[in-house]
Amino acid sequence: MSVQEMLAAHPTAAAGDDQVLIRCIEECLACTQTCTSCADSSIAEDDIAPMVLSIRLCLDCANVCDTTLRVATRLTGRQSAPLASVLEACVDACRRCGDECAKHAQHHEHHRLCEAECRRCEEACRALIASL
Amino acid sequence: MSVQEMLAAHPTAAAGDDQVLIRCIEECLACTQTCTSCADSSIAEDDIAPMVLSIRLCLDCANVCDTTLRVATRLTGRQSAPLASVLEACVDACRRCGDECAKHAQHHEHHRLCEAECRRCEEACRALIASL
Amino acid sequence: MSVQEMLAAHPTAAAGDDQVLIRCIEECLACTQTCTSCADSSIAEDDIAPMVLSIRLCLDCANVCDTTLRVATRLTGRQSAPLASVLEACVDACRRCGDECAKHAQHHEHHRLCEAECRRCEEACRALIASL
Amino acid sequence: MSVQEMLAAHPTAAAGDDQVLIRCIEECLACTQTCTSCADSSIAEDDIAPMVLSIRLCLDCANVCDTTLRVATRLTGRQSAPLASVLEACVDACRRCGDECAKHAQHHEHHRLCEAECRRCEEACRALIASL
Repeated sequence: MSVQEMLAAHPTAAAGDDQVLIRCIEECLACTQTCTSCADSSIAEDDIAPMVLSIRLCLDCANVCDTTLRVATRLTGRQSAPLASVLEACVDACRRCGDECAKHAQHHEHHRLCEAECRRCEEACRALIASL
Repeated sequence: MSVQEMLAAHPTAAAGDDQVLIRCIEECLACTQTCTSCADSSIAEDDIAPMVLSIRLCLDCANVCDTTLRVATRLTGRQSAPLASVLEACVDACRRCGDECAKHAQHHEHHRLCEAECRRCEEACRALIASL
Repeated sequence: MSVQEMLAAHPTAAAGDDQVLIRCIEECLACTQTCTSCADSSIAEDDIAPMVLSIRLCLDCANVCDTTLRVATRLTGRQSAPLASVLEACVDACRRCGDECAKHAQHHEHHRLCEAECRRCEEACRALIASL
Repeated sequence: MSVQEMLAAHPTAAAGDDQVLIRCIEECLACTQTCTSCADSSIAEDDIAPMVLSIRLCLDCANVCDTTLRVATRLTGRQSAPLASVLEACVDACRRCGDECAKHAQHHEHHRLCEAECRRCEEACRALIASL
């Protein structure tokens, strides 16, 4: 709710009801926290070795989602901003992280949840790209 | 909901029902986005000059909340982590940003919303400090 | 020097003498700090209004460079990481920020320095893309 | 060199020759990259288990140094900013990370380099706190 309220209060008054934008920002917020948590859960597991790639991709995805939600939140001079390329990087990061976490989803609930969130975030970024 | 699910799925199984921790992470997520949006809204206003300090403090608060939610999310070796000092910095950043945005709350809805979020986040960080 | 030393100490031992990678990470470090400083310098100027777009693009570029240096620094499972798409976003962010800061370079030294750093960082990212 | 140039170009003209501030920002830049690299090197080692805590503390330290360099870089309204509390958190994060990496310094060069950088950054933050 707070994302919608903040966008509606922006002086450009252009995005308060942009549900595609709002959903993208909300999923990036959820995904940056989820990936941070999944990487930390993996290093606390007994058998870390097979999860090394998922740890690395979760850390990447957490960073990319964090940057994406900031660039997407800014509405000032929006048509001149690097939004499309950042969203493309976020789609890429979410897809790679989701695919890798999927390989561990049967063994660890945190990987199952992280894969699901990466899929949602990837889809939300794709929808925003399509609406630009 | 996703914060709670991820913490519950952590192998340490120690924080899935820690409502004080969950609330702190959720408020830091909301606050980092809100402050990013408030700073961007301010630079889009006609009369920027009186808002310069609020822009700066919003940018600081967005950075500190971002770091805080990451440090608070990590449960591995938690008793050895710099959680208390990071939470103290977050209380400080939220208080200063909230106080400054309060001065503009009557003129701009984004400042009113940002002040309210900073107060909630400050309170959530204080509660987590008290529970450590 | 520290970037080179750290990459050389990585167990994959694959990138200690990768001058293109080292330069990209070093320029992203310089650029994230320079853009943070340029945005802050702009809000302290008397005539902020014409610089609003440069402030926004500097904040975007600071975020993108920060994420890029992290993704580029990680060597584990590197061939599976979203490095190329993140570098493309960084080229885009640096180009847009550099072009906008160039418009103010005659009036403010911080814009001149920021444009120059954005150009160097864009070039370093392009060189790394070409070497992948 | 670029940190000094940017601070000197700030309209407040107050910190261009503040060597204590410049050194703090430079060490935070080096430390955020070094800790990101050390965490990634650790997950690529054969025997990850004993390094789990160092991975977690390196990730925390990388986040805290990143926020610290941004807050320290901003000179606008500096006396009202949460600089001291952020520096205290950075001292804490660097000390904990340095102490943990020290335990592995004999076995891995990346831990030795990371410990040394954490010590330098901690000292630079302490010096800036003392100068406030």
